[in-house]
Amino acid sequence: MKNKRVIIYQVICLLLLLVVAVLYVRQQRGTTEKSMTSVKETVLSVINNRKSVRDFIPTKPVSKEDIESIVKAGMAAPSGKDIRPWEIVVIEDRAVLDAMAAQLPHAKMLAQSPLAMVVCGDTSQSSYWYLDCSAVTENILLAVEALELGAVWTAAYPYEDRMNAVIQSINLPEHILPLCVIPMGYPKGEQKVKDKYDESKIHHNKW
Amino acid sequence: MKNKRVIIYQVICLLLLLVVAVLYVRQQRGTTEKSMTSVKETVLSVINNRKSVRDFIPTKPVSKEDIESIVKAGMAAPSGKDIRPWEIVVIEDRAVLDAMAAQLPHAKMLAQSPLAMVVCGDTSQSSYWYLDCSAVTENILLAVEALELGAVWTAAYPYEDRMNAVIQSINLPEHILPLCVIPMGYPKGEQKVKDKYDESKIHHNKW
Repeated sequence: MKNKRVIIYQVICLLLLLVVAVLYVRQQRGTTEKSMTSVKETVLSVINNRKSVRDFIPTKPVSKEDIESIVKAGMAAPSGKDIRPWEIVVIEDRAVLDAMAAQLPHAKMLAQSPLAMVVCGDTSQSSYWYLDCSAVTENILLAVEALELGAVWTAAYPYEDRMNAVIQSINLPEHILPLCVIPMGYPKGEQKVKDKYDESKIHHNKW
Repeated sequence: MKNKRVIIYQVICLLLLLVVAVLYVRQQRGTTEKSMTSVKETVLSVINNRKSVRDFIPTKPVSKEDIESIVKAGMAAPSGKDIRPWEIVVIEDRAVLDAMAAQLPHAKMLAQSPLAMVVCGDTSQSSYWYLDCSAVTENILLAVEALELGAVWTAAYPYEDRMNAVIQSINLPEHILPLCVIPMGYPKGEQKVKDKYDESKIHHNKW
């Protein structure tokens, strides 16, 4: 009788050992697989899921840490001859955001966003700063998406009137031109992703 | 005596159950934590670690699957009025790559790269296609980095001579202009990342 109980417990021990082994192996393998596929899958998914967000929760500010991460991502962009002709104006002041919203018909959402960034180019350093600054802007938009925030690229360049409105609002010096104003914050409501993949726009070897 | 053995096995069973519980909880928590931090950390790290790669393993081709992922990432870029004025020429033909390398002094590495993409804009659809196409290019460069491949943005626009060389090499029609040629492939040798973060380029609220 007691011998039988010992055998039963031995069997339970063996089964539990097996469970421990399985859990351990799954955990180890999970960690490696995750780190290998996740970089690829995660980055492609953030790039493909980035969307223009135009509605924000006005009362929910973006943390200093997130703002720094976003600006840092922007400055990691490539630039012609590595000149890095960019400057970034980070706006959190309600009065400045509202003044810009009033002057920029295409950026009215600045009145609801707790934050905006203006990506500018130093025209004295590069004559094609707007290309480098477009890469900066895309990096910023992707960092925003990764941080589960929302943003939208509203154009200043190449429109004279919009550029002038921005220049006056934030006192840009003569050699600095604004490429775009990017209102950002926590998205309000559901946001839809567009699938823009179009095979007819791919050409092989020659047109 | 036998009673003692039963107690020992009971204790072992309890200990093993504890190990199973700990492993299970760690595994569950690990999965959630990973999925929450990894998106942020992974994407920011790929953005910040992207670098210009100019040396490639010429004999190691990029898979069709990766090429499709890269092109798809490119077309996920934002564009003014959602016009999507981009076209992408994917070049794997050695003769075309070599012909372009010979004509483009700044893109000599095309002679070593197994692949290149030319990001073009449809000038009949947008007058600032080069901004949208710069965002496409940055998406492509980031997808390349995420896939552990390498690439470099070599400019065509706004240089007349370089644009003409590309137009002739790949027979672009009159309304299509090339923004850049992006040689890509598996990186050869060690690649260094530049830290381009510069706090003096950040301005708060006003200049």
